[in-house]
Amino acid sequence: MNRRDLIELGIGLVLVAAAAVAHFADATPVLAFGIAALAIAMLARLVGGATEQLGTRLGSSAAGVVQSALGNLPELFIALFALNQGLTRVVQSALVGSVIANSVLVLGLAFLVGGARNGTQRFESPRARMIATLTTLAATILAIPTLANAFHAPAAKHAETLSLFCAGVLLILFFVTLPGFLMGGHEKSGEPPRWSLRTTVGVLGGAALAAALVSDWFVTALKPATEALGMSEDFAGLVIVAIAGNAVENVVGVQFAARNRPDFAISVIVNSALQVALLLTPLIVFASLFFATSLTLVFPTLLAIVLLLAAAITSLVVYDGESTWEEGAILVGLYSVIAASFWWGA
Amino acid sequence: MNRRDLIELGIGLVLVAAAAVAHFADATPVLAFGIAALAIAMLARLVGGATEQLGTRLGSSAAGVVQSALGNLPELFIALFALNQGLTRVVQSALVGSVIANSVLVLGLAFLVGGARNGTQRFESPRARMIATLTTLAATILAIPTLANAFHAPAAKHAETLSLFCAGVLLILFFVTLPGFLMGGHEKSGEPPRWSLRTTVGVLGGAALAAALVSDWFVTALKPATEALGMSEDFAGLVIVAIAGNAVENVVGVQFAARNRPDFAISVIVNSALQVALLLTPLIVFASLFFATSLTLVFPTLLAIVLLLAAAITSLVVYDGESTWEEGAILVGLYSVIAASFWWGA
Amino acid sequence: MNRRDLIELGIGLVLVAAAAVAHFADATPVLAFGIAALAIAMLARLVGGATEQLGTRLGSSAAGVVQSALGNLPELFIALFALNQGLTRVVQSALVGSVIANSVLVLGLAFLVGGARNGTQRFESPRARMIATLTTLAATILAIPTLANAFHAPAAKHAETLSLFCAGVLLILFFVTLPGFLMGGHEKSGEPPRWSLRTTVGVLGGAALAAALVSDWFVTALKPATEALGMSEDFAGLVIVAIAGNAVENVVGVQFAARNRPDFAISVIVNSALQVALLLTPLIVFASLFFATSLTLVFPTLLAIVLLLAAAITSLVVYDGESTWEEGAILVGLYSVIAASFWWGA
Repeated sequence: MNRRDLIELGIGLVLVAAAAVAHFADATPVLAFGIAALAIAMLARLVGGATEQLGTRLGSSAAGVVQSALGNLPELFIALFALNQGLTRVVQSALVGSVIANSVLVLGLAFLVGGARNGTQRFESPRARMIATLTTLAATILAIPTLANAFHAPAAKHAETLSLFCAGVLLILFFVTLPGFLMGGHEKSGEPPRWSLRTTVGVLGGAALAAALVSDWFVTALKPATEALGMSEDFAGLVIVAIAGNAVENVVGVQFAARNRPDFAISVIVNSALQVALLLTPLIVFASLFFATSLTLVFPTLLAIVLLLAAAITSLVVYDGESTWEEGAILVGLYSVIAASFWWGA
Repeated sequence: MNRRDLIELGIGLVLVAAAAVAHFADATPVLAFGIAALAIAMLARLVGGATEQLGTRLGSSAAGVVQSALGNLPELFIALFALNQGLTRVVQSALVGSVIANSVLVLGLAFLVGGARNGTQRFESPRARMIATLTTLAATILAIPTLANAFHAPAAKHAETLSLFCAGVLLILFFVTLPGFLMGGHEKSGEPPRWSLRTTVGVLGGAALAAALVSDWFVTALKPATEALGMSEDFAGLVIVAIAGNAVENVVGVQFAARNRPDFAISVIVNSALQVALLLTPLIVFASLFFATSLTLVFPTLLAIVLLLAAAITSLVVYDGESTWEEGAILVGLYSVIAASFWWGA
Repeated sequence: MNRRDLIELGIGLVLVAAAAVAHFADATPVLAFGIAALAIAMLARLVGGATEQLGTRLGSSAAGVVQSALGNLPELFIALFALNQGLTRVVQSALVGSVIANSVLVLGLAFLVGGARNGTQRFESPRARMIATLTTLAATILAIPTLANAFHAPAAKHAETLSLFCAGVLLILFFVTLPGFLMGGHEKSGEPPRWSLRTTVGVLGGAALAAALVSDWFVTALKPATEALGMSEDFAGLVIVAIAGNAVENVVGVQFAARNRPDFAISVIVNSALQVALLLTPLIVFASLFFATSLTLVFPTLLAIVLLLAAAITSLVVYDGESTWEEGAILVGLYSVIAASFWWGA
């Protein structure tokens, strides 16, 4: 572990401790919620880093499986605790929000930072284009049950069945495409392992355990905190949960853009959105069957629409083959307008 | 005629005979429907093959006209018989279904088979991109009356007029673009005629006549069969009619992908979707004026939405310049979810 | 000034005089409206020409500011007079109509003329692609308040706030991206100034002043004229106002296509759509706060949908890297169907 790893680990420990204090000492919900969100974001980053270290030790094919399975742990924990409390809308908007946060906000920040530092960046790798295509296709599949529910009366009566069918198709597609494709996502970095196996497993286990604990506190504080702040559950899921649980982790993508490796930045960021659509979402749909209120893929209509728009835009900005900081600024602006649309509650 | 042609012809004859027996011997509607669907698929393939043979004998410009006009005969027959029985929704969903079946399902199968056999396939021909663009544009035009009807009250009152206007525009665009563009679709194969003119005309006439007969039986069995199977009329049109009447014929496109000629595969498959949008659909709209219930371009809303999504996705997967079998798998998955959305009836 | 400039100036003067006569001599509203529309189209062209001349004398960065600010003057005048008369729907549809008229109709005409004269045209400049991307992104932002209003009940109650937030974001994006990007739009022509500074300022001032006067007459005649013609206010804004106030000016783009400079043609035409989305629209939203009825970005739903379609199609036809006259014909056909959808009034 280098100095920076140790600093990150230290910050993680402090944030978890602070979240624990806020939770058990009955801090105001807003404070407890805010600290827990920061702690989760840091833990998601640590889990991401540790799975990547693990990946460098495994064959590339096993690495793909491990990274997909473990990298999404923090968001999975939050989803399970939220489902347990019946907060299905928060979970739905967090899933869609993860796709949007990555493919619009984080990608926008990568373009902004990369463009400001290095001028116009060109990316011509077919791999980045292919990931964008697959993400757009997967997001389209994900949006169909909602569209069917909103615009086709006969299907609306069978929302749950259609939703399970769709989740099954996504999961099959994940397992079918996993060996050949997703594994390729991280191997290109080509760096040797920086952590010993013992350290890697220790950090991974510790961070995952801490993520499970903090997720519980986070979800407990979520409802009172959002009410105190006047934000809707949709906004909490779409923006706060999605950014803390999934998107902050992809700051690494922004760093790649800053170091003028735009192809790799795009692959990392968009691949994360792809995994949410192909793996995490159907997994949670099936998991929800064991809870009192099950979760369907029938999202609030606007959520499905912005999912489609975000997916289309991802392909658009990747296909044009170059990025400028202006393009990044407009993406960030788009994200802010999408987020604002969900601020108000019912 | 080579051995394979003879086998196909034989299968066609057997299927037509079986469909006749099923029809006249009062087989269960499901059986009669199933056999008639298989017979139509085979006849559509024979008509397609014969018009292609005819095309190799004509100047390329005349070939374009002939192929467009005759290649869509089987689906036209089905549409006319269905209109005669007042099954306008089946016809509408069959038209949209032909576009979707070609540009999502058949294209997906071509990517799947082509990728599994030949690895990642690259296609850089501007022609494939141009056909994809034109198809997306034509599908957008086709979707507008429905969108206007669903989201703009004043236009909803004038659905029929707007629909006829739109059909007129599509037909004009077909005739205007025909000489310069569509004809190019099949000439590239550059193969000499394999059948004598007599054989060609004989197969064409015979298959077309048989298609007319079988279409009648197919439509007669459609309503009782779909009711017995619990599927909606929308599903019957979108999936069964579209695949039997138009998409199976494009198996030739999948064969081109398998032989590692992805550019040509894409051109053949997407060109078929383009002809449905530009020629077959407006033709049937105008033809329907001579029937008791006329057909408008005001589709069920979800149908227009999936048409737009399919059109956009066609351009997407063609523009990214390469295909993998994973991309094909996701396209097939998308098709299955779209189809499932229409399973249930009102 | 060359002979052609003088002819254009003369036509402008005659049309303004004719519009004045029609206005003050109580001509039938249809006649007054038609002449005023022609006069505005000519004045918009003169203002556009004069700002371009001014641009060649300024540093490229100042030129960008000046051209963006002054080039949109005629449409701004119409919007202000229309707001003053409470015709908010005309203004809304004129803004969306300007984007659509440029990115579908004028671009289509450029492809049609360019293709007919020069055969298939290829454009590979990243700049044209980048402008198309930014326009699509900006149009997506612009469409979000309407989508939120139509498909998300909680946001519908806060339409005005969301609309102002969105307008603020667009305006910030305009000013942020202006120095680095928009200025590049016209400098490429690389022609020396043809008019003296005195002539330029004179034409600019005169044409702007005349545009202000004629806009008033145009708006006065608009309501009675459209009623007499049986067209809706939406159609008047989307088609007539948008073409007269913004699109005719971009005939220069069609001329570039005719002279086989497709990259430049696309830049000019799509850049105009971009400026309407990023600058003119939010400016009018804020200006409307000083009028009795304020204008929001909550458009009629179909208007936002066609805006999104037009934006997506712009990227599509630019990304495919070549244009044919057939593609142009289909774009013009698409525009005619969109326009027809808005013909009927409530």
